[in-house]
Amino acid sequence: MIDRQRVIGDLITPNNSKIILLVMDGIGDIPGDKGLTPLQEANTPNLDSLAQKSDLGQTIPVLPGITPGSGPGHLGIFGYDPLKYQIGRGILEALGIDVEVGEKDLVARGNFATLDDDIIVDRRAGRPSSEESAKIVEILNENIKQIEDVEVRFYPGKEHRFVVKLTGEGLHDKLEDADPQKEGKPIKYTKALDEASKKSEKIINMLIDKIKEVLKDQPKMNFALLRGFSKYPNLPQFGEVYKLKPAAVAVYPMYKGLAKLVGMEILKAGQTIEDEFNTVKETWEKYDFFYVHIKKTDSYGEDGNFDSKVKVIEEVDKNLPILLDLNPDVLVVIGDHSTPCAMKGHSFHPVPLMVYSKFTRKGLSKLYNEFECARGTLGTIYAVDVMPLALGYAGRLEKYGA
Amino acid sequence: MIDRQRVIGDLITPNNSKIILLVMDGIGDIPGDKGLTPLQEANTPNLDSLAQKSDLGQTIPVLPGITPGSGPGHLGIFGYDPLKYQIGRGILEALGIDVEVGEKDLVARGNFATLDDDIIVDRRAGRPSSEESAKIVEILNENIKQIEDVEVRFYPGKEHRFVVKLTGEGLHDKLEDADPQKEGKPIKYTKALDEASKKSEKIINMLIDKIKEVLKDQPKMNFALLRGFSKYPNLPQFGEVYKLKPAAVAVYPMYKGLAKLVGMEILKAGQTIEDEFNTVKETWEKYDFFYVHIKKTDSYGEDGNFDSKVKVIEEVDKNLPILLDLNPDVLVVIGDHSTPCAMKGHSFHPVPLMVYSKFTRKGLSKLYNEFECARGTLGTIYAVDVMPLALGYAGRLEKYGA
Repeated sequence: MIDRQRVIGDLITPNNSKIILLVMDGIGDIPGDKGLTPLQEANTPNLDSLAQKSDLGQTIPVLPGITPGSGPGHLGIFGYDPLKYQIGRGILEALGIDVEVGEKDLVARGNFATLDDDIIVDRRAGRPSSEESAKIVEILNENIKQIEDVEVRFYPGKEHRFVVKLTGEGLHDKLEDADPQKEGKPIKYTKALDEASKKSEKIINMLIDKIKEVLKDQPKMNFALLRGFSKYPNLPQFGEVYKLKPAAVAVYPMYKGLAKLVGMEILKAGQTIEDEFNTVKETWEKYDFFYVHIKKTDSYGEDGNFDSKVKVIEEVDKNLPILLDLNPDVLVVIGDHSTPCAMKGHSFHPVPLMVYSKFTRKGLSKLYNEFECARGTLGTIYAVDVMPLALGYAGRLEKYGA
Repeated sequence: MIDRQRVIGDLITPNNSKIILLVMDGIGDIPGDKGLTPLQEANTPNLDSLAQKSDLGQTIPVLPGITPGSGPGHLGIFGYDPLKYQIGRGILEALGIDVEVGEKDLVARGNFATLDDDIIVDRRAGRPSSEESAKIVEILNENIKQIEDVEVRFYPGKEHRFVVKLTGEGLHDKLEDADPQKEGKPIKYTKALDEASKKSEKIINMLIDKIKEVLKDQPKMNFALLRGFSKYPNLPQFGEVYKLKPAAVAVYPMYKGLAKLVGMEILKAGQTIEDEFNTVKETWEKYDFFYVHIKKTDSYGEDGNFDSKVKVIEEVDKNLPILLDLNPDVLVVIGDHSTPCAMKGHSFHPVPLMVYSKFTRKGLSKLYNEFECARGTLGTIYAVDVMPLALGYAGRLEKYGA
């Protein structure tokens, strides 16, 4: 994959245009029982009217057939090749539960597990509730505050999951997972994969023994598996790469975290879609790029809740005039991936894309949905093409060559 | 971008087929006041009838969102990755005003500028007319014929622009522009960016002083800024790469020049579209590949002259039977980029593509325009895919693998 950011780097020419990137998470779908997708089923007069003035297309998040997680899905639409930039699971887990991560931190994802005679007999400790698990996290925080010169802090996650953050000098993250992946296996310690990570190896393996000791009398959650060791990734900063002043409007921690990773300013978004759109309105003069994230299209897709996904789309549509009235130069409507209700999870299907600007071909499509987008004037492109396209429509890219 | 030429290199199998690549420069557009593009507005019975027998698609000239200049636009449709092969501005400027450039030459683009007390106060010397500027070029040619062992020759361009050609041994082109880019700055000399270009650096900086001395009494055009230093690029030759005998039919110097860069034979094209098509007819037996360039679709796009762009398309259509009667095995109708009248310049929009041969899927499209092409059987492809496609339809590519 050609690095789009490298190619367009020399072509960027700032102007006064304003760009909105509206991301309906997991928007793409496949037909449900009635033979329609949620986008087709939803009553969306505003999106459809916009489609008539826009160029439509569809994006491939990573490569055909590949289902992206939220990290790669978002990196792609932010213009970062998701095959080049890989964000560690520890970081993503930490972002997801709103853990602040800085340059001296090393984070990992943890699972509470059940140990019997030093053999891992349940990798998820009988799937405790989040409340039960949070109590164990509290016990760990009370008993383990430091290993040698490294501070240790635990954060509760969903069910058996938690995040551990190590803070200190000289921590590196080229480390094997401390997780045998299978039940019936003995404890697996981590192993440094390079010289620089030897200190982390030592601290983490001491930590594993300490956790075992502290939890030894717990009936089920008597051990922990640590994996996805990761430092804060050093990503090119969105504002510098594109010479934009970017802001992020997102309700959920994971997406605020992803936006922060690329250097966007995180705005107070409120709770509802209307709140989010009004946040854009209120800060319109201060930024020239707004990433707006709608979570629940994905959540209901994951739940297999077709009707509620339809309702979220209708809520976006109802509030869309708040954004349209701002008269953005470019409004991109997209998802980071598809989340078909019938699959109850992310999928590899292409993602419907709509780009509104004054300079569109328009006229081909009457509706905004998967099928009109598949036949749209933009064709089928990669997610990493979306930012260059938005910049092109915004007049922010100079001609390439004479 | 995978190098198509490398991939198809081993597959080329010459035969007696004849291919025409008809390039309507800047053909792609966006809807005008009446909601139609020039291609939709134009009355084009021949192109439309051809569309019914052809495969349609659209091309991305470089990458989505990127607007190409004429150089990258043409390299792409000739099958040369425009991100790999970059042609210097000096060469393109020289080609554009029909300056012969050979292997010992180093060319640069010049601007006449106004100097006041060694400060550049006007980078375009008050935008002189081409006639005024040509007189200064004459003065330079009279007074500067040689710097050490290097011959110097100036060629007039449009308004404040000119081309300077240095001819001698050991000239290389890894050089900084001798142009501060901003007004209110002092003279900037060139600087060699590698050891081999040291001689060029010395000659050019002596030339700059000499120009200043010769022009010192001119009221406005009393200095020159030189940039885009470039040697003749060493491109793979079209005829060798594709095992074709290629000819170019183009009226404007820039396009003859681009065709010459890749080794096409330049035919006397006449002036009108009818002349150009008759040139193909008259030389039909001598070549097996014809690149035919129509300039004015782009020129009128640049002028924002919608009606005249429509008329040029209709003129192409009216004369198309001259080409069709030759019964070409493959006729590709394409542009090098889009030039929307509403934008008065090149753009990033995909370019309509039509490929006629005996072996098309046909039957999907009734018209040749941006929208039918966007939904055509060829899909959305890169410009560098066009030559392999043409060769494929011509039966000039062997099966890849067994």
